[in-house]
Order: sequence, then structure tokens, then C-alpha cells
Amino acid sequence: MTFTREQLTEHIIHAGQFLYARGWSPATSSNYSARLSANQVLLTVSGKHKGQLVAEDILATDLQAQSLEPHKKPSAEALLHTQIYNWQPAIQAVLHTHSVNATVLSRIESAAAIEFTDYELQKAFAGISSHKQPLLVPIFDNDQDMPRLAQQVQQWLDAHPDCPGYLIRGHGLYTWGTSMQEALRHIEAFEFLLECELKVRACTAP
Amino acid sequence: MTFTREQLTEHIIHAGQFLYARGWSPATSSNYSARLSANQVLLTVSGKHKGQLVAEDILATDLQAQSLEPHKKPSAEALLHTQIYNWQPAIQAVLHTHSVNATVLSRIESAAAIEFTDYELQKAFAGISSHKQPLLVPIFDNDQDMPRLAQQVQQWLDAHPDCPGYLIRGHGLYTWGTSMQEALRHIEAFEFLLECELKVRACTAP
Amino acid sequence: MTFTREQLTEHIIHAGQFLYARGWSPATSSNYSARLSANQVLLTVSGKHKGQLVAEDILATDLQAQSLEPHKKPSAEALLHTQIYNWQPAIQAVLHTHSVNATVLSRIESAAAIEFTDYELQKAFAGISSHKQPLLVPIFDNDQDMPRLAQQVQQWLDAHPDCPGYLIRGHGLYTWGTSMQEALRHIEAFEFLLECELKVRACTAP
Amino acid sequence: MTFTREQLTEHIIHAGQFLYARGWSPATSSNYSARLSANQVLLTVSGKHKGQLVAEDILATDLQAQSLEPHKKPSAEALLHTQIYNWQPAIQAVLHTHSVNATVLSRIESAAAIEFTDYELQKAFAGISSHKQPLLVPIFDNDQDMPRLAQQVQQWLDAHPDCPGYLIRGHGLYTWGTSMQEALRHIEAFEFLLECELKVRACTAP
Repeated sequence: MTFTREQLTEHIIHAGQFLYARGWSPATSSNYSARLSANQVLLTVSGKHKGQLVAEDILATDLQAQSLEPHKKPSAEALLHTQIYNWQPAIQAVLHTHSVNATVLSRIESAAAIEFTDYELQKAFAGISSHKQPLLVPIFDNDQDMPRLAQQVQQWLDAHPDCPGYLIRGHGLYTWGTSMQEALRHIEAFEFLLECELKVRACTAP
Repeated sequence: MTFTREQLTEHIIHAGQFLYARGWSPATSSNYSARLSANQVLLTVSGKHKGQLVAEDILATDLQAQSLEPHKKPSAEALLHTQIYNWQPAIQAVLHTHSVNATVLSRIESAAAIEFTDYELQKAFAGISSHKQPLLVPIFDNDQDMPRLAQQVQQWLDAHPDCPGYLIRGHGLYTWGTSMQEALRHIEAFEFLLECELKVRACTAP
Repeated sequence: MTFTREQLTEHIIHAGQFLYARGWSPATSSNYSARLSANQVLLTVSGKHKGQLVAEDILATDLQAQSLEPHKKPSAEALLHTQIYNWQPAIQAVLHTHSVNATVLSRIESAAAIEFTDYELQKAFAGISSHKQPLLVPIFDNDQDMPRLAQQVQQWLDAHPDCPGYLIRGHGLYTWGTSMQEALRHIEAFEFLLECELKVRACTAP
Repeated sequence: MTFTREQLTEHIIHAGQFLYARGWSPATSSNYSARLSANQVLLTVSGKHKGQLVAEDILATDLQAQSLEPHKKPSAEALLHTQIYNWQPAIQAVLHTHSVNATVLSRIESAAAIEFTDYELQKAFAGISSHKQPLLVPIFDNDQDMPRLAQQVQQWLDAHPDCPGYLIRGHGLYTWGTSMQEALRHIEAFEFLLECELKVRACTAP
């Protein structure tokens, strides 16, 4: 199914209203995008209240994260969005959120990845049909140098073609889907797993 | 009181809106059902957003969990629903939810059952008239093999005719009632008790 | 200011909608009352969904907790409400709620009372003008024998004429006010203090 | 951009509705203000329900916190608001809130300031462009003597011209902005950071 720019803009605005209401995009944090065509994406401009997005807060870029609208400047993190669209042609939406649980778990976990096992909700991700099948989520150290951060991400993506998302330490979550609806389901599933993992650790802290 | 299919469908849709809004049915998880007749139940099909159910997302099955509508396939977990209707003819609704607290407590508790005592809210369950009367809730290990899991559950139900619900480890809660309203009250009471128990453990962790 | 029965009924219904929405009256728990006259109170009947109260769910009793409406039976806990109206003629509303935090803190605290100090919000209670002035809240052991429990409460009230509320262990909170508005403010203040105290303990558990 | 008294009143009322709904201004706590002119501010009177403010709940004062409306008395904390407007002419709004997390963290942290580092959300504050740039937030001991407390605050402000806000121990948060919108963003960012920090501590408590 293909959507018009107007429809995709609505999808992004509604995603923002939902994600802000859940507390996962506070204080103008987060970026959302949707694929407009084989070579173009729609992306939120930075610094906007994510629960109050309007059509003007969204710009089109090419897959090198260059703005196609001279008067609008894409967020520095645009590169992390277009990287995903370049990686897999089937991906139609990328969501970057900024929840307390994603921030906290990525800070207290010093390993390079978290492996979720024995959670039934792992099955919310395509390709996982049992709680026995681990869900591996990498954590990259935060970096204000986006090309350098994107390079770290790319190495992981190349080695893990079924990667469902990743965390940036002290920063947040990136996930995606073959539709905005699927990307939102992945956000919900990740937030559930992150909250569970933190509660397990709080109750079993050594 | 008997209800029409249309009315029971409304009950299930409203239950989904409530349970999703509370965060107890995230990311298309959970299944809900209602008894349609002595030999038939209405059940949610799998993979649907539980806050946005429509009448087409619900199918009728017999009490062996076989679909009565050729174009719709019941969830693998249908067996866990029909089992309850077979067990007690008075039961009119079964709710399976998937909350963070049910997931976490069932993971960190290694015993085969949790006994709730000295909670006034135990009285929310029929047959319990004092906080001194323990509420026993079994925890079954998660299993993708539904007939095998159903067999474990059946042994417990046969031995505990007043069982009010059970947990599946890392997966969620099953509870039921003689009406949808009662089943929802049981969900609220269980979620309250699970949250209390987790907070007690977080504050008193050794 | 005096209110009609219709107005007081509205106050109770709105209180229930608020308290249920906050999660402080789950699963048909809780009782609310308002003074109707010098010798009569309006009180919720037991077993009702507190977010969906209607006028029929409220009955009038005398100050001995005897129903003035033969077809309606007051809750066993009516005695704990009328006790407060007998104790202080200025009290116009009594709220009994049943939150997770009230339940958990009253369980993990083995002392007979909690003393809140150095919280600015203690000033939400009449007669407290500094965070240095302690707020003392007794905890009574839960008891299904209401006259016996009421006797324990009475001893405390007689000895503490400015008592702002109390906890029943594993059960919930009782507080009151010279108006429904003040009683609701006291609930908010207590719930705030209980949540703070639990978080302090979770972060500083030995 | 300059606003009329009516517009600024609306800003304050809406801020209250938002902050109360988030649970950050419970039980009539908190004070909000907006700059009316170079020498005047609008400020909430004390003791009002912050989710139900009306225009009459707001008064004008001069920058010495003296009421310009004889029949309305400013809150004792008015001094802490006008102090900020005197300190920096660009500031247009000051918000004092009273959340559980601000209360708890300021109680369990015995140091005179908290330094937030490695949180991407530090960038929500003007002048911070990297998670490596620390955000320093002082904590003042609570004091019912406002002039004395204001003096403590003033010393810190004079020494830290880019201070974004501060905590009062067991009491709450003060933050501000060059617009009400910015002040609200700062509240969201602070509440996020406070919640993160508390969760980190709960999971890593020694």
C-alpha cells in the first residue's frame, strides 16, 4: 500500500500525539520519519513539541539526509533515520523515542547489548515465534558526532540483518517497521520489555 | 441474563479499550472471550490492537476451540479459554492480559504458586470474606505447546475448584468471571495485588 | 454552607470518578460519605464500581450507622465513617480509599504510626504551618470485626484531637475534611506523602 | 512578543491544568508566574487547586513581591518568583512545582547540588549542546523564612548566571524560561532527569 504525503504526514502527527501522551517523547525530544518513496523520506524537524506537531514541522529529505526543502533544516539525527531506509527497502517508518526506561536501562547496563529471553512479548517482533528465541538489542554509546555514531550502527546492522531496534546510551530507542502501525507496535513491545527488565533488576538488586 | 452476539461483542470491545488504556494489553498481546451459549464462545482473533477491536476481530468457536467461521483462525491460546468454560458452566467471560507486573512477578517468583495473605482486596474474589483467607495463584512455566500447557492448567483446576486465575511465567494472567463485569473486577484486583507484591519486594529486597 | 441531598450525592459521585481514575479505589473497594445533617450521613453501599456510581448506590444512615432506607444495607465499614462524624461536628466528608501505596507502606511499616517530617506538603493539612511540624499517622491492624476495629480507632482519636487520617494495615486510608473539597485535598496530600515515603525506602533499602 | 494580561492569565491557567494533570502540583501546592511588564508580574495566589485555576486566582505584584491588588495577598513564596525576574530581564515565566520525584531526590541526596551528566536530554536546556556538558542543579534546605531562603538562592544565582533551575529539599522545583512554553519544556526535562536519576539509584542501591 502506498500513501500520499498528506497521509504520511497524518501518520507522523498521530504517532507524535500517541508517543508524547505515553511520556516517551518529552521536552521536544525524539524524531519520527516515514518513507515517501524509494528515495525520499518525511522527517520531523528538530525542537518541536511532539504532541503538537503540525504539517509544517515535517520536511522531506533524500536518503543521504539532505533536505529537499531549502527553508527547512533536518535534525542532526536525520542520518540515523535514512540509514535504516537504505539498509532495508521494505522499511516504511522509523521512530526514535526518548523514554525514562530506555534511558535508565541503557545507562545501568554496561554490556554492548541486552538479550531478552523468556518474555512472551518477544513474539511481537516479526520472525520471533517463541519466548525461547532471544531478542538481541545493541546499546551504542551516545555521540554528538552523527556520522561516527551512524558508522557504529551500520556495522551492527550489516552483521544482524534481523535487528529490530537499538538503544543509544542515556539517550533513547530507535525502532522501525514495514508500516507506521508496526513501528508503533515495536515501540510498545520495547517499552514493555525495558520496563520489565528494570523492575526485575530493582527487585533483585544484589 | 443472556446476551446476544452483538451485545457480547460490545462487551469484548469495551473490555479491550479499558485493558489497553491501562497498559495491560500492549502491542497486540492478550485474548478475551465471552460465552455465547452452552457450547460456543466468542474469542478475539490474534494479532489485533486490543484498544481498537472491531466486530470482525472476534470469532465464534466451539468448546474444543475449533473455529465455527471457516475464514477466521482462532489464536493458539483459544484452548486455554475453552478449557475454563468446560471446567465451570457458570463462567461467562475469560480474560488473558499481559501486564508488566504479571510478567515481572511471575519471572522473579520461582515457586509454583504465590499466596496472597493479609490484603483486604483478596475479598474482591467471590468466596473470600476475610484478609486472613489466603488467595492462592499458581504460576505455570510458559510453553508454546498449548495442549501441553493446557494439561498443566487442567491438573491444577481439577485440584482447586475455586481457583480464581493463574499466571504464566513471563507471559501474563488468566482470570474469569460469571460476567464480563466480574472478570474485569478480577483483573483489577489481581493487578492491584501484583503491583503491591512487587513494591513490597522492591522495598524489602535482601 | 449546607447542601441538599442531591448536591451531596453529586459530590460523592464526582469524588468516586476522580478517585477511581487515579487508581485509588480499584475493584469496587472504598467507601465515601458526606454529612447530610447533624444526625445523618450519606454513604456509598458496598460492592459498587466507584468510577460508575449512581444516586441509587448511596444510602442515608444515622450516626449509629443504621440504614434509614430499609431496602439498602450499609457497608460493614459504615461504623468507621459515622465514628468520625460523631467525633467532630465540623467534619462534612469522610473518604476511605484503597491505593497500592497505602496498602504497601502499611504492610512494610511495623510500627504503630508513621511520622512524616520535612515534607513541605505536610502543610496541606489544617493546623500545620511548617515542614518541621511532624504529621503523625497511625496504622491499625486490619480486622473484619468492625466494632473492635472502631474501638481501636476511637482510642487514638480521643488522644489525638487533630488526627488528619489513619491507615489500616494492608487495607487503605481513611481521611476527612470540613468539606468534600478538603477531604479530597487530604487524599491527594496523603497519597503524595505515601508515594514519597515508599520511593525513599526503595532507594535507601538497607 | 508581548502579551496582554488576559493572554498571560490564560497561559498560567493552561500551565496549571497541564502540571496538575501530570501530578506535579498536587493538593493546591505550587506557584506559577509570568512577567507582565518590566516591573510587574502575574502570580497565582496560594491555596488554589492548580488544575482548576480561574482568572481571580491570579494577582499582579511588583518586583518586590508587593501586591498591586489590595484585596489579594501574594503567597509567601512570591519573593522566590520576583527574585528570578530581577535576576534576568529576559525571563518571562517562572514555575514552581511539587512532584514526588523532586521531593524524593532532594531528600535522599545530601550534597548541595546534583550534577546530571551523560543524559541526552540535558540538551533541552538553552546553552547545552552535548550530553558531556554537565547540568548542575543546586538543592537548598527547606526554610519557612522566605527572605532567608531567597538570600541562599541569590548567592547561587549570582555565582551561576546560567543556572536553569533549583530544588528545595523535600519541597520541589523552581525553573523558568524566556517564554511560558520554554519554562514548561524545562519542567518536563527536569522531571525526566529526576525520574531517571531515582530509577538508576533504585536499581543500583548499594
